[in-house]
Amino acid sequence: MVTVPIQALDAAARDRLFLEARTANKWQDRPVSDRTLHELYDLLKMGPTSANCSPARLLFLRTPEAKERLRPALSSGNLDKTMTAPVTVIVAHDPAFYDLLPKLFPHADAKSWFTSSPALAETTAFRNGTLQGAYLILAARAVGLDAGPMSGFDNAKVDAEFLAAEGWKSNFLVNLGYGDPAGLFPRSPRLDFDEACRLL
Amino acid sequence: MVTVPIQALDAAARDRLFLEARTANKWQDRPVSDRTLHELYDLLKMGPTSANCSPARLLFLRTPEAKERLRPALSSGNLDKTMTAPVTVIVAHDPAFYDLLPKLFPHADAKSWFTSSPALAETTAFRNGTLQGAYLILAARAVGLDAGPMSGFDNAKVDAEFLAAEGWKSNFLVNLGYGDPAGLFPRSPRLDFDEACRLL
Repeated sequence: MVTVPIQALDAAARDRLFLEARTANKWQDRPVSDRTLHELYDLLKMGPTSANCSPARLLFLRTPEAKERLRPALSSGNLDKTMTAPVTVIVAHDPAFYDLLPKLFPHADAKSWFTSSPALAETTAFRNGTLQGAYLILAARAVGLDAGPMSGFDNAKVDAEFLAAEGWKSNFLVNLGYGDPAGLFPRSPRLDFDEACRLL
Repeated sequence: MVTVPIQALDAAARDRLFLEARTANKWQDRPVSDRTLHELYDLLKMGPTSANCSPARLLFLRTPEAKERLRPALSSGNLDKTMTAPVTVIVAHDPAFYDLLPKLFPHADAKSWFTSSPALAETTAFRNGTLQGAYLILAARAVGLDAGPMSGFDNAKVDAEFLAAEGWKSNFLVNLGYGDPAGLFPRSPRLDFDEACRLL
Protein backbone atom coordinates (compact mmCIF):
# COMPACT_ATOMS: atom_id res chain seq x y z
CA MET A 1 0.00 0.00 0.00
CA VAL A 2 1.41 3.34 -1.03
CA THR A 3 0.91 6.28 1.24
CA VAL A 4 0.37 9.61 -0.41
CA PRO A 5 -0.46 12.59 1.75
CA ILE A 6 -4.05 13.72 1.47
CA GLN A 7 -4.23 17.40 0.69
CA ALA A 8 -7.76 18.53 1.24
CA LEU A 9 -8.49 22.22 0.80
CA ASP A 10 -8.81 24.36 3.90
CA ALA A 11 -12.01 26.06 4.97
CA ALA A 12 -11.17 29.38 3.33
CA ALA A 13 -10.64 27.73 -0.06
CA ARG A 14 -13.87 25.72 0.28
CA ASP A 15 -15.71 28.92 1.12
CA ARG A 16 -14.19 30.70 -1.87
CA LEU A 17 -15.10 27.93 -4.30
CA PHE A 18 -18.40 26.60 -3.01
CA LEU A 19 -19.77 27.60 0.35
CA GLU A 20 -19.59 31.39 0.31
CA ALA A 21 -19.33 31.98 -3.44
CA ARG A 22 -22.39 33.58 -4.98
CA THR A 23 -23.66 34.29 -8.47
CA ALA A 24 -22.94 37.96 -9.11
CA ASN A 25 -25.65 40.25 -10.47
CA LYS A 26 -23.99 43.63 -9.93
CA TRP A 27 -20.37 44.59 -10.50
CA GLN A 28 -17.72 46.72 -8.93
CA ASP A 29 -16.10 49.29 -11.20
CA ARG A 30 -12.96 47.25 -11.46
CA PRO A 31 -11.65 45.87 -14.74
CA VAL A 32 -10.60 42.31 -15.52
CA SER A 33 -7.26 42.17 -17.27
CA ASP A 34 -6.45 39.96 -20.23
CA ARG A 35 -3.72 38.51 -18.05
CA THR A 36 -6.38 37.32 -15.60
CA LEU A 37 -8.30 35.71 -18.46
CA HIS A 38 -5.19 33.80 -19.48
CA GLU A 39 -4.65 32.77 -15.86
CA LEU A 40 -8.26 31.57 -15.79
CA TYR A 41 -7.86 29.54 -18.97
CA ASP A 42 -4.60 28.00 -17.78
CA LEU A 43 -6.48 26.55 -14.81
CA LEU A 44 -9.70 25.42 -16.46
CA LYS A 45 -7.97 23.76 -19.40
CA MET A 46 -6.47 21.21 -17.01
CA GLY A 47 -9.85 19.83 -15.90
CA PRO A 48 -10.59 16.36 -17.22
CA THR A 49 -12.60 15.66 -20.38
CA SER A 50 -13.43 12.41 -22.11
CA ALA A 51 -10.38 11.27 -24.09
CA ASN A 52 -9.00 14.75 -23.37
CA CYS A 53 -11.31 15.98 -26.13
CA SER A 54 -11.45 19.56 -24.78
CA PRO A 55 -14.34 20.72 -27.01
CA ALA A 56 -15.02 24.03 -25.24
CA ARG A 57 -14.39 27.25 -27.14
CA LEU A 58 -14.54 30.51 -25.20
CA LEU A 59 -15.28 33.98 -26.49
CA PHE A 60 -14.42 36.71 -24.00
CA LEU A 61 -16.49 39.81 -24.74
CA ARG A 62 -14.75 42.79 -23.15
CA THR A 63 -15.50 45.81 -25.32
CA PRO A 64 -18.72 47.84 -25.60
CA GLU A 65 -18.81 46.92 -29.29
CA ALA A 66 -18.77 43.20 -28.54
CA LYS A 67 -21.42 43.63 -25.84
CA GLU A 68 -23.68 45.47 -28.26
CA ARG A 69 -23.48 42.55 -30.65
CA LEU A 70 -24.68 40.30 -27.82
CA ARG A 71 -27.50 42.57 -26.62
CA PRO A 72 -30.23 41.38 -29.05
CA ALA A 73 -29.76 37.78 -27.89
CA LEU A 74 -30.18 38.44 -24.17
CA SER A 75 -33.36 37.84 -22.20
CA SER A 76 -34.65 40.92 -20.41
CA GLY A 77 -33.77 39.58 -16.97
CA ASN A 78 -30.15 39.08 -17.97
CA LEU A 79 -29.70 42.34 -19.85
CA ASP A 80 -28.44 44.86 -17.31
CA LYS A 81 -26.07 42.60 -15.44
CA THR A 82 -24.56 41.38 -18.69
CA MET A 83 -24.15 44.75 -20.34
CA THR A 84 -22.44 46.09 -17.20
CA ALA A 85 -20.20 43.06 -16.54
CA PRO A 86 -16.52 43.67 -17.24
CA VAL A 87 -16.41 40.46 -19.28
CA THR A 88 -19.06 38.13 -20.65
CA VAL A 89 -17.90 34.71 -21.78
CA ILE A 90 -19.74 32.81 -24.50
CA VAL A 91 -19.11 29.19 -23.52
CA ALA A 92 -19.33 27.35 -26.82
CA HIS A 93 -18.07 24.08 -28.22
CA ASP A 94 -16.68 22.88 -31.50
CA PRO A 95 -18.89 20.11 -32.96
CA ALA A 96 -15.83 18.99 -34.97
CA PHE A 97 -13.65 18.78 -31.85
CA TYR A 98 -12.50 15.33 -32.95
CA ASP A 99 -10.28 16.85 -35.64
CA LEU A 100 -7.86 17.82 -32.86
CA LEU A 101 -7.79 14.40 -31.18
CA PRO A 102 -4.62 13.26 -32.97
CA LYS A 103 -2.92 16.08 -31.03
CA LEU A 104 -4.93 15.84 -27.80
CA PHE A 105 -5.09 12.04 -27.46
CA PRO A 106 -2.19 10.69 -29.48
CA HIS A 107 -2.19 7.17 -27.96
CA ALA A 108 -5.24 5.93 -29.90
CA ASP A 109 -7.27 6.63 -33.00
CA ALA A 110 -9.91 8.42 -30.96
CA LYS A 111 -11.04 10.54 -33.89
CA SER A 112 -12.65 7.53 -35.53
CA TRP A 113 -14.82 6.89 -32.46
CA PHE A 114 -16.62 10.13 -33.24
CA THR A 115 -16.51 10.38 -37.02
CA SER A 116 -18.25 7.00 -37.09
CA SER A 117 -21.06 8.20 -34.78
CA PRO A 118 -22.44 11.72 -35.19
CA ALA A 119 -24.80 11.20 -32.24
CA LEU A 120 -21.90 10.26 -29.95
CA ALA A 121 -19.93 13.24 -31.21
CA GLU A 122 -22.79 15.63 -30.51
CA THR A 123 -23.41 14.31 -27.00
CA THR A 124 -19.68 14.28 -26.23
CA ALA A 125 -19.24 17.88 -27.38
CA PHE A 126 -22.15 19.11 -25.27
CA ARG A 127 -21.29 17.06 -22.17
CA ASN A 128 -17.61 17.89 -22.15
CA GLY A 129 -18.04 21.48 -23.22
CA THR A 130 -20.41 21.84 -20.28
CA LEU A 131 -17.91 20.23 -17.91
CA GLN A 132 -15.36 22.78 -19.08
CA GLY A 133 -17.90 25.56 -18.52
CA ALA A 134 -18.22 24.40 -14.92
CA TYR A 135 -14.44 24.34 -14.60
CA LEU A 136 -14.49 27.93 -15.86
CA ILE A 137 -16.95 28.99 -13.15
CA LEU A 138 -14.83 27.44 -10.39
CA ALA A 139 -11.52 28.55 -11.91
CA ALA A 140 -12.91 32.11 -11.98
CA ARG A 141 -13.52 31.88 -8.26
CA ALA A 142 -10.03 30.40 -7.83
CA VAL A 143 -8.41 33.45 -9.44
CA GLY A 144 -10.47 35.86 -7.36
CA LEU A 145 -13.26 36.66 -9.81
CA ASP A 146 -16.98 36.32 -9.33
CA ALA A 147 -19.05 34.55 -11.96
CA GLY A 148 -22.59 34.98 -13.17
CA PRO A 149 -23.56 32.01 -15.36
CA MET A 150 -26.84 32.02 -17.26
CA SER A 151 -28.64 30.17 -20.02
CA GLY A 152 -31.44 32.69 -20.61
CA PHE A 153 -30.53 33.91 -24.11
CA ASP A 154 -31.15 33.09 -27.75
CA ASN A 155 -28.53 30.51 -28.72
CA ALA A 156 -29.33 30.70 -32.43
CA LYS A 157 -28.76 34.46 -32.47
CA VAL A 158 -25.44 34.09 -30.67
CA ASP A 159 -24.36 31.35 -33.03
CA ALA A 160 -25.23 33.46 -36.07
CA GLU A 161 -23.61 36.63 -34.75
CA PHE A 162 -20.42 35.22 -33.25
CA LEU A 163 -19.81 31.60 -34.19
CA ALA A 164 -20.92 31.04 -37.77
CA ALA A 165 -17.49 31.34 -39.35
CA GLU A 166 -15.96 28.57 -37.23
CA GLY A 167 -19.10 26.46 -36.92
CA TRP A 168 -19.05 26.48 -33.14
CA LYS A 169 -22.23 26.21 -31.04
CA SER A 170 -23.09 28.32 -28.01
CA ASN A 171 -23.89 26.56 -24.74
CA PHE A 172 -24.25 29.14 -21.97
CA LEU A 173 -22.95 32.54 -20.89
CA VAL A 174 -20.87 33.54 -17.88
CA ASN A 175 -20.42 37.11 -16.70
CA LEU A 176 -17.07 37.74 -15.02
CA GLY A 177 -15.89 40.54 -12.79
CA TYR A 178 -15.66 41.54 -9.16
CA GLY A 179 -19.13 41.30 -7.71
CA ASP A 180 -20.86 44.01 -5.73
CA PRO A 181 -22.53 42.33 -2.72
CA ALA A 182 -25.38 44.86 -3.03
CA GLY A 183 -26.60 42.87 -6.04
CA LEU A 184 -26.86 39.51 -4.33
CA PHE A 185 -30.18 37.71 -3.98
CA PRO A 186 -30.92 35.69 -0.84
CA ARG A 187 -29.44 32.23 -1.13
CA SER A 188 -31.84 29.58 -2.43
CA PRO A 189 -32.18 26.19 -0.71
CA ARG A 190 -30.42 23.08 -1.95
CA LEU A 191 -31.61 19.48 -1.96
CA ASP A 192 -30.69 17.42 1.09
CA PHE A 193 -28.37 14.46 0.64
CA ASP A 194 -31.24 12.01 0.88
CA GLU A 195 -33.22 13.83 -1.77
CA ALA A 196 -30.47 13.76 -4.39
CA CYS A 197 -28.23 10.83 -3.41
CA ARG A 198 -28.42 7.10 -2.88
CA LEU A 199 -25.85 4.95 -1.06
CA LEU A 200 -25.61 1.44 -2.56
CA MET B 1 -17.21 51.93 -5.68
CA VAL B 2 -17.29 49.21 -3.06
CA THR B 3 -14.06 47.51 -2.17
CA VAL B 4 -14.24 43.86 -1.35
CA PRO B 5 -11.03 41.94 -0.73
CA ILE B 6 -10.09 39.60 -3.54
CA GLN B 7 -9.45 36.14 -2.22
CA ALA B 8 -7.76 34.14 -4.92
CA LEU B 9 -6.69 30.62 -4.06
CA ASP B 10 -3.04 30.02 -3.29
CA ALA B 11 -0.76 27.90 -5.44
CA ALA B 12 -1.24 24.74 -3.37
CA ALA B 13 -5.01 24.89 -3.76
CA ARG B 14 -4.74 25.55 -7.50
CA ASP B 15 -2.42 22.57 -7.82
CA ARG B 16 -4.81 20.38 -5.84
CA LEU B 17 -7.83 21.36 -7.95
CA PHE B 18 -6.41 21.81 -11.44
CA LEU B 19 -2.70 21.89 -12.09
CA GLU B 20 -1.42 18.78 -10.34
CA ALA B 21 -4.66 16.81 -10.06
CA ARG B 22 -4.82 13.74 -12.26
CA THR B 23 -7.46 11.23 -13.30
CA ALA B 24 -6.88 8.16 -11.15
CA ASN B 25 -6.70 4.71 -12.73
CA LYS B 26 -5.35 2.70 -9.79
CA TRP B 27 -6.30 2.95 -6.14
CA GLN B 28 -4.70 2.79 -2.75
CA ASP B 29 -6.19 0.27 -0.35
CA ARG B 30 -7.86 3.00 1.63
CA PRO B 31 -11.61 3.25 2.05
CA VAL B 32 -13.82 6.28 1.49
CA SER B 33 -16.19 6.87 4.38
CA ASP B 34 -19.85 7.77 4.04
CA ARG B 35 -19.00 10.87 6.03
CA THR B 36 -16.61 11.93 3.25
CA LEU B 37 -19.37 11.39 0.68
CA HIS B 38 -21.67 13.67 2.67
CA GLU B 39 -18.86 16.24 2.92
CA LEU B 40 -18.45 15.97 -0.87
CA TYR B 41 -22.14 16.49 -1.51
CA ASP B 42 -22.32 19.44 0.87
CA LEU B 43 -19.75 21.23 -1.30
CA LEU B 44 -20.95 20.31 -4.77
CA LYS B 45 -24.60 21.09 -4.05
CA MET B 46 -23.67 24.77 -3.61
CA GLY B 47 -22.42 25.16 -7.18
CA PRO B 48 -24.71 27.25 -9.38
CA THR B 49 -27.38 25.80 -11.66
CA SER B 50 -29.93 27.49 -13.89
CA ALA B 51 -32.80 28.71 -11.70
CA ASN B 52 -31.19 26.61 -8.96
CA CYS B 53 -32.76 23.59 -10.69
CA SER B 54 -30.23 21.12 -9.24
CA PRO B 55 -31.19 18.19 -11.50
CA ALA B 56 -28.25 15.90 -10.64
CA ARG B 57 -28.95 12.67 -8.84
CA LEU B 58 -25.99 10.69 -7.49
CA LEU B 59 -25.76 6.98 -6.80
CA PHE B 60 -22.71 6.05 -4.74
CA LEU B 61 -21.80 2.41 -5.38
CA ARG B 62 -19.67 1.23 -2.45
CA THR B 63 -20.39 -2.46 -2.02
CA PRO B 64 -19.21 -5.43 -4.11
CA GLU B 65 -22.87 -6.24 -4.77
CA ALA B 66 -23.53 -2.81 -6.23
CA LYS B 67 -20.36 -2.98 -8.31
CA GLU B 68 -21.39 -6.35 -9.74
CA ARG B 69 -24.67 -4.83 -10.90
CA LEU B 70 -22.63 -2.21 -12.76
CA ARG B 71 -20.12 -4.60 -14.31
CA PRO B 72 -22.14 -5.62 -17.43
CA ALA B 73 -22.50 -1.97 -18.44
CA LEU B 74 -18.79 -1.12 -18.35
CA SER B 75 -16.52 -0.94 -21.37
CA SER B 76 -13.50 -3.23 -21.16
CA GLY B 77 -11.05 -0.35 -20.74
CA ASN B 78 -12.93 0.95 -17.71
CA LEU B 79 -13.57 -2.40 -16.04
CA ASP B 80 -10.62 -3.01 -13.72
CA LYS B 81 -10.27 0.51 -12.40
CA THR B 82 -13.99 0.74 -11.73
CA MET B 83 -14.36 -2.62 -10.03
CA THR B 84 -11.41 -1.82 -7.75
CA ALA B 85 -12.37 1.78 -6.95
CA PRO B 86 -13.61 2.30 -3.38
CA VAL B 87 -16.63 4.18 -4.74
CA THR B 88 -18.13 4.60 -8.19
CA VAL B 89 -20.64 7.40 -8.63
CA ILE B 90 -23.38 7.20 -11.22
CA VAL B 91 -23.94 10.86 -12.12
CA ALA B 92 -27.55 10.94 -13.26
CA HIS B 93 -30.27 13.53 -13.55
CA ASP B 94 -33.98 13.67 -12.97
CA PRO B 95 -35.81 14.57 -16.20
CA ALA B 96 -38.70 15.76 -14.01
CA PHE B 97 -36.42 18.03 -11.96
CA TYR B 98 -38.92 20.87 -12.40
CA ASP B 99 -41.30 19.26 -9.91
CA LEU B 100 -38.96 20.48 -7.16
CA LEU B 101 -38.67 24.06 -8.42
CA PRO B 102 -41.41 25.41 -6.13
CA LYS B 103 -39.01 24.47 -3.31
CA LEU B 104 -35.71 25.30 -5.04
CA PHE B 105 -36.73 28.55 -6.75
CA PRO B 106 -39.70 29.90 -4.80
CA HIS B 107 -39.59 33.47 -6.19
CA ALA B 108 -41.12 32.59 -9.57
CA ASP B 109 -43.23 29.96 -11.30
CA ALA B 110 -40.15 28.38 -12.83
CA LYS B 111 -41.82 24.98 -13.12
CA SER B 112 -44.03 26.25 -15.93
CA TRP B 113 -40.99 27.28 -18.00
CA PHE B 114 -40.15 23.61 -18.32
CA THR B 115 -43.51 21.87 -18.32
CA SER B 116 -44.40 24.03 -21.31
CA SER B 117 -41.28 22.99 -23.25
CA PRO B 118 -40.07 19.39 -23.04
CA ALA B 119 -37.06 20.20 -25.25
CA LEU B 120 -35.96 22.99 -22.89
CA ALA B 121 -36.47 20.67 -19.92
CA GLU B 122 -34.33 17.94 -21.47
CA THR B 123 -31.49 20.29 -22.41
CA THR B 124 -31.63 21.97 -18.99
CA ALA B 125 -31.47 18.63 -17.15
CA PHE B 126 -28.48 17.44 -19.18
CA ARG B 127 -26.60 20.75 -19.09
CA ASN B 128 -27.09 21.40 -15.39
CA GLY B 129 -26.67 17.79 -14.33
CA THR B 130 -23.35 17.88 -16.17
CA LEU B 131 -22.32 21.11 -14.45
CA GLN B 132 -23.04 19.40 -11.14
CA GLY B 133 -20.97 16.40 -12.25
CA ALA B 134 -18.05 18.76 -12.83
CA TYR B 135 -18.61 20.30 -9.41
CA LEU B 136 -18.46 16.76 -8.02
CA ILE B 137 -15.08 16.12 -9.68
CA LEU B 138 -13.59 19.31 -8.25
CA ALA B 139 -15.29 18.94 -4.88
CA ALA B 140 -13.78 15.45 -4.64
CA ARG B 141 -10.35 16.97 -5.09
CA ALA B 142 -11.25 19.64 -2.53
CA VAL B 143 -11.98 17.01 0.13
CA GLY B 144 -8.76 15.12 -0.63
CA LEU B 145 -10.10 12.43 -2.95
CA ASP B 146 -8.97 11.58 -6.45
CA ALA B 147 -11.55 11.22 -9.20
CA GLY B 148 -11.71 9.08 -12.30
CA PRO B 149 -14.54 10.31 -14.53
CA MET B 150 -15.57 8.33 -17.62
CA SER B 151 -18.32 8.06 -20.16
CA GLY B 152 -17.35 4.71 -21.67
CA PHE B 153 -20.28 2.58 -20.54
CA ASP B 154 -23.75 1.51 -21.64
CA ASN B 155 -26.12 4.20 -20.40
CA ALA B 156 -29.23 2.20 -21.25
CA LYS B 157 -28.06 -0.75 -19.15
CA VAL B 158 -27.29 1.50 -16.20
CA ASP B 159 -30.66 3.20 -16.49
CA ALA B 160 -32.46 -0.14 -16.58
CA GLU B 161 -30.48 -1.66 -13.71
CA PHE B 162 -30.32 1.29 -11.32
CA LEU B 163 -32.61 4.13 -12.33
CA ALA B 164 -35.82 2.72 -13.77
CA ALA B 165 -37.88 3.04 -10.59
CA GLU B 166 -37.29 6.78 -10.24
CA GLY B 167 -37.09 7.54 -13.96
CA TRP B 168 -33.63 9.12 -13.69
CA LYS B 169 -31.15 9.08 -16.58
CA SER B 170 -27.45 8.28 -16.33
CA ASN B 171 -24.96 10.82 -17.61
CA PHE B 172 -21.43 9.70 -16.71
CA LEU B 173 -19.51 7.77 -14.06
CA VAL B 174 -16.88 8.94 -11.58
CA ASN B 175 -14.63 6.61 -9.63
CA LEU B 176 -13.60 7.98 -6.25
CA GLY B 177 -10.83 6.99 -3.88
CA TYR B 178 -7.24 7.77 -3.07
CA GLY B 179 -5.22 7.32 -6.23
CA ASP B 180 -2.08 5.27 -6.57
CA PRO B 181 0.40 7.33 -8.61
CA ALA B 182 1.65 4.08 -10.16
CA GLY B 183 -1.52 4.03 -12.25
CA LEU B 184 -1.12 7.46 -13.79
CA PHE B 185 -0.70 7.91 -17.53
CA PRO B 186 1.58 10.66 -18.88
CA ARG B 187 -0.24 13.95 -18.99
CA SER B 188 -1.88 14.74 -22.34
CA PRO B 189 -1.46 18.17 -23.98
CA ARG B 190 -4.08 20.89 -23.76
CA LEU B 191 -5.12 23.46 -26.33
CA ASP B 192 -3.30 26.78 -26.17
CA PHE B 193 -5.28 29.91 -25.33
CA ASP B 194 -5.30 31.02 -28.96
CA GLU B 195 -6.63 27.68 -30.14
CA ALA B 196 -9.63 27.64 -27.81
CA CYS B 197 -10.29 31.28 -26.95
CA ARG B 198 -11.11 34.56 -28.67
CA LEU B 199 -10.78 38.04 -27.13
CA LEU B 200 -13.45 40.43 -28.44
